[in-house]
Amino acid sequence: MRALPPGSTIGILGGGQLGRMLASAAARLGFTCHIYSDATGPAFDVAAKTTIGEFTDLDAIRKFAGRVDVITYEFENVPLCAAAAAAEITPVRPDPKALEVAQDRLVEKRFLASLDLPVAPFAEVASLDDLTAGLQTIGTPAILKTTRLGYDGKGQVRIADAKDPAWALDAIAHAPAVLEGMIDFAYEVSVLAVRGADKQARFYDLPLNTHRDGILDTSTVPSPLPKARIAEADAIAGSIATALDYTGVLAVELFYLGDDTDTPFLVNEIAPRVHNSGHWTLDACAVCQFENHIRAVAGWPLGGTTRHSDAMMTNLIGHDVDAWADLAADDDGGPDTCLHLYGKHQARPGRKMGHITHLTDRKSS
Amino acid sequence: MRALPPGSTIGILGGGQLGRMLASAAARLGFTCHIYSDATGPAFDVAAKTTIGEFTDLDAIRKFAGRVDVITYEFENVPLCAAAAAAEITPVRPDPKALEVAQDRLVEKRFLASLDLPVAPFAEVASLDDLTAGLQTIGTPAILKTTRLGYDGKGQVRIADAKDPAWALDAIAHAPAVLEGMIDFAYEVSVLAVRGADKQARFYDLPLNTHRDGILDTSTVPSPLPKARIAEADAIAGSIATALDYTGVLAVELFYLGDDTDTPFLVNEIAPRVHNSGHWTLDACAVCQFENHIRAVAGWPLGGTTRHSDAMMTNLIGHDVDAWADLAADDDGGPDTCLHLYGKHQARPGRKMGHITHLTDRKSS
Repeated sequence: MRALPPGSTIGILGGGQLGRMLASAAARLGFTCHIYSDATGPAFDVAAKTTIGEFTDLDAIRKFAGRVDVITYEFENVPLCAAAAAAEITPVRPDPKALEVAQDRLVEKRFLASLDLPVAPFAEVASLDDLTAGLQTIGTPAILKTTRLGYDGKGQVRIADAKDPAWALDAIAHAPAVLEGMIDFAYEVSVLAVRGADKQARFYDLPLNTHRDGILDTSTVPSPLPKARIAEADAIAGSIATALDYTGVLAVELFYLGDDTDTPFLVNEIAPRVHNSGHWTLDACAVCQFENHIRAVAGWPLGGTTRHSDAMMTNLIGHDVDAWADLAADDDGGPDTCLHLYGKHQARPGRKMGHITHLTDRKSS
Repeated sequence: MRALPPGSTIGILGGGQLGRMLASAAARLGFTCHIYSDATGPAFDVAAKTTIGEFTDLDAIRKFAGRVDVITYEFENVPLCAAAAAAEITPVRPDPKALEVAQDRLVEKRFLASLDLPVAPFAEVASLDDLTAGLQTIGTPAILKTTRLGYDGKGQVRIADAKDPAWALDAIAHAPAVLEGMIDFAYEVSVLAVRGADKQARFYDLPLNTHRDGILDTSTVPSPLPKARIAEADAIAGSIATALDYTGVLAVELFYLGDDTDTPFLVNEIAPRVHNSGHWTLDACAVCQFENHIRAVAGWPLGGTTRHSDAMMTNLIGHDVDAWADLAADDDGGPDTCLHLYGKHQARPGRKMGHITHLTDRKSS
């Protein structure tokens, strides 16, 4: 893979905040960005070129592909037909097979299991019989999740009692689903791996992730994960990246069960893209996840992944953002507070409007 | 001054790399940016809205002003008539009187002298008689500089010998000029001050600046300036900012003469804008000079100005940028190296194409 020179055009499928931060990082390296999305969004404000089109409009996708030098994506639900149509014209990185795996929970779990990676017990659920059988094998409590289009806690329901589980299928509108055993884990961490054109991977520090109403709330580095476990976690992500012949940033959410078990980690899910739990890298690393993703897909050498500061990132969800004036004036952590707003016009419950990163334990000057 | 809420539009006069980095910083705070410039430039690639127009087309300037919530500028040679026309419609920050002072070396020196700030000996030169008299008073070597439009060593000539100085006037095309005594200084530092809507100023660490062919080459923090002198340098910039009732980032270049003189500092020049010698703040501070400038002009509370890392910024001038692949692969300083390219299409001698910041002495993790 020849490195794309500065001035080349990076095409990005998707116009959300991840596309926005990717576009900013690409511009910093001298690239021009072209966003393709089905509606205007946060990325449109910081990109040199934009196209609005359906993701299923393959003619428009091909035309877009003809105008850019490489294509990447900021969300895993890019239709496979769109990725394939684009790939006919110009390289798509990460390879679309990562989409295939990541956009279907069942395919994902089977893929992970095929790599001998530990996952929670699961069962395919296409019918009430499947569900009943699954609950018998897996036990309760369990979670029923649609195989597709679930995110931020959407498309899933918790089943406490195995008796009469038909309501749960109603709750997910009888979509194809997977039943997962509820795991009693100590905490969640995520691996933020970046794999370059030279097929070598680098890893950011693993953040500890907490959630609120099913949505990521905070990511904190360093996590309390025992040092000896870090290489193990990185190796899990590394093996996934290798299996997918991956290029770019790959996020792997891991449940840490504690050191008193045979299986310290379970893989929760993977995201074939830059990830919310890596936003702290914007402010605590010389080269953030967005820049390293762009470097990888452009065939550049990767930048470093070490951090210069400890950090805690907190999402601003929905009306959290109304406090922008107080957040900006945060004298308490003033010099250490990095505020990021995504330029979304309307704050709706559950909508990611921005984030704030507190740098802690910094080098004193 | 009421703080402009996120979603407001920041108008920027000028489309160069400083406008580009301002626009990126503004976007990060949720603002929309509108660039006005006489030609496309680096800022156009990262701004939501752009207008191409002459700076002397006051109708176009007024129309632009009507579409934005505040106007700032990224270069000090904005015609005063343009700033005045814009200010009829919408606030212009910093106040245009800073332009008036900064775009004429003679006005600037008289302004500084009126504040009792130390400057190199100088004399107005409008004729050969003025020049001859000036050389007699000031002595040689001396520098003859055009009062206007000089930057990066342009529009100036060094006079070693007072005899027959007419050639020097020819060399600057007989433009109105100022003769300055050559100062034997230890080194140059710059104050990067930011003054908020509340009229309080904050100061970044002073970088040590070195030049190559009259163009800034490196800026390094910390500088070797004795600690006791820092407050003194900051106070110089603070008094200038107060006198101009300034809002935003103000850069003040100081010659440090050493501690064995009565006058440790001379003010070289001021720039009423973000400044090349502050680019290291992008990577070594939680809130960079660009964001703090935007915060100030938007009436927001200022962010912190402390740094988390020592840093050395090196400009990439002209064909320096051809080494982008090596710079990106800088394994030596790999994790610490922050590369910034401005997206300019053609590398010409003396043209600022990007910069690179090495973070040193970072917090180890």
